[in-house]
Amino acid sequence: MALLLIRNNKEYEAWIDALHEADPSLEVLTPETVKDPKAITMAVTWKAPNGSFEPYPNLKVIGSMGAGVDHLFNDPSLPKDVTLTRVVDEKLASDMQEFVLTLCLSHIKNLPLYRNLQDQSQWKPTQYKRVPDVQIGILGFGTLGQAVGKALQQTGFQVSGWSHSRKEVEGIKSYTQDELDDFLAQAEILVCLLPLTEETEGILNASLFSKLPKGAYLINVARGGHLVDADLIEALDNNHLSGAALDVFHNEPLPQDHPFWNRKDILITPHVASMSNAASVAPQIAENYRRMEKGEELKNTVSQKKGY
Amino acid sequence: MALLLIRNNKEYEAWIDALHEADPSLEVLTPETVKDPKAITMAVTWKAPNGSFEPYPNLKVIGSMGAGVDHLFNDPSLPKDVTLTRVVDEKLASDMQEFVLTLCLSHIKNLPLYRNLQDQSQWKPTQYKRVPDVQIGILGFGTLGQAVGKALQQTGFQVSGWSHSRKEVEGIKSYTQDELDDFLAQAEILVCLLPLTEETEGILNASLFSKLPKGAYLINVARGGHLVDADLIEALDNNHLSGAALDVFHNEPLPQDHPFWNRKDILITPHVASMSNAASVAPQIAENYRRMEKGEELKNTVSQKKGY
Repeated sequence: MALLLIRNNKEYEAWIDALHEADPSLEVLTPETVKDPKAITMAVTWKAPNGSFEPYPNLKVIGSMGAGVDHLFNDPSLPKDVTLTRVVDEKLASDMQEFVLTLCLSHIKNLPLYRNLQDQSQWKPTQYKRVPDVQIGILGFGTLGQAVGKALQQTGFQVSGWSHSRKEVEGIKSYTQDELDDFLAQAEILVCLLPLTEETEGILNASLFSKLPKGAYLINVARGGHLVDADLIEALDNNHLSGAALDVFHNEPLPQDHPFWNRKDILITPHVASMSNAASVAPQIAENYRRMEKGEELKNTVSQKKGY
Repeated sequence: MALLLIRNNKEYEAWIDALHEADPSLEVLTPETVKDPKAITMAVTWKAPNGSFEPYPNLKVIGSMGAGVDHLFNDPSLPKDVTLTRVVDEKLASDMQEFVLTLCLSHIKNLPLYRNLQDQSQWKPTQYKRVPDVQIGILGFGTLGQAVGKALQQTGFQVSGWSHSRKEVEGIKSYTQDELDDFLAQAEILVCLLPLTEETEGILNASLFSKLPKGAYLINVARGGHLVDADLIEALDNNHLSGAALDVFHNEPLPQDHPFWNRKDILITPHVASMSNAASVAPQIAENYRRMEKGEELKNTVSQKKGY
């Protein structure tokens, strides 16, 4: 039995080191070093090329090296009978909290505006908003969404969340499935933290934007597939939305000729809200490997049916 | 007896309304509407032109409409025997807290960098810093500096403060007069919140910058007079400082031909950290007027000797 790593960028060293640090007895292989494919019982991967799992008939577990699992479901040959896991990294959550807080503050204090004015040597004081006066809506109010919501609320923002089932989070109003329109109507800043599923693909579209208050600001830190790019451009051009901060895109890196690059009302960051760190997540991967060996229940499993 | 308003921009309406709202019996005049200069016992001003107080022989109190009082001391004809006051506005303090927090977060999450990269359609993920790993030094650790320090500390930053006398603020290390070098040596972000006095003018200079750690970031939200502009440019050009956010300048608006405008490593904001709001400070001006009438001790007085 051995643990197999598969990464799209083939950068394995930090991960092998971190896993050996977590459990020195672990046999950690890569597609290049596997001798007996039948010995592989667990694979941990980040954006493995399609078909990567086919050579390994005895896979019981496939884990994502990050919080996102959509890269697993993108592979039509993903085995149906394996247990899927992801990583729940407290630092990833706190990194996301910090990043979303930064984008919200930067927007209400007009920093993107002043940066644009600076290009024209223009001095133009503009009234800012105060934190307690601003309503932020978190679209996708699961574990990560709640963590981000709490951080925003502790800073003083008014926060609400939208998710399938109602959540109990002190000081934050929780909206469910059929209350989406009410939720959107009060979101001056909309933060997308949804998982990417068939149901949520393209959810950030013209219809949704039209239900936001005029002048609303969009922050997408989930996946590029949530957004209909042309609809965002239209909502900005007709001034219904005042701007957007996008950290994720349909294709990454964002192609050089994409119209987003030239827009002064869109801030582009290169998928940096939270960057996975091998050292901080290796212990939970090693622990799931041991649980699998002993036939125990795994931690942080993902439903193949729901897709998250 | 009457209250006189003097503003450099002659925008009086909001202030007259707010003062009448606070005390309908108050007689509020402007230089244009004064009939009997001897009746003026208190003047409240923002950047009054030099010599503005000379026509009024019975002035007992001169108050600043904002937290800053350097504009009073800039007038060589400021009467020596009057009581000086300033405004302590909780909203001004919380606005400053929010603004400095925004600038610190924006810097450690590389937002200014990504905005510059966007101009070149460049996708270049860069490691961010985490809030708890960053040391911020507050230069000027009085009432406002402590309020800002607490907000940063509550967000998770490591914070220290430097001031004349040692302060007791939980979780924040307080440095005093002769410990400036030690204070500077650990400040990855230096926030200037000093009053502008003879002693602090030009304090942000080459000698001070050289004592900051390499790669430090400067935030000046105090007064333009604290900074030696050419020394900042030199410290940036030789990469000792990584960048700066400046909200205040020697001349405001910043002249069109000033070299700061074209620098990608300086973020210019047009003196908007905290904008005085007539409605929120009028009640304390009205109260000081009543205290003066009754011969009671005034609130928020300023020492003519110390200059703050």
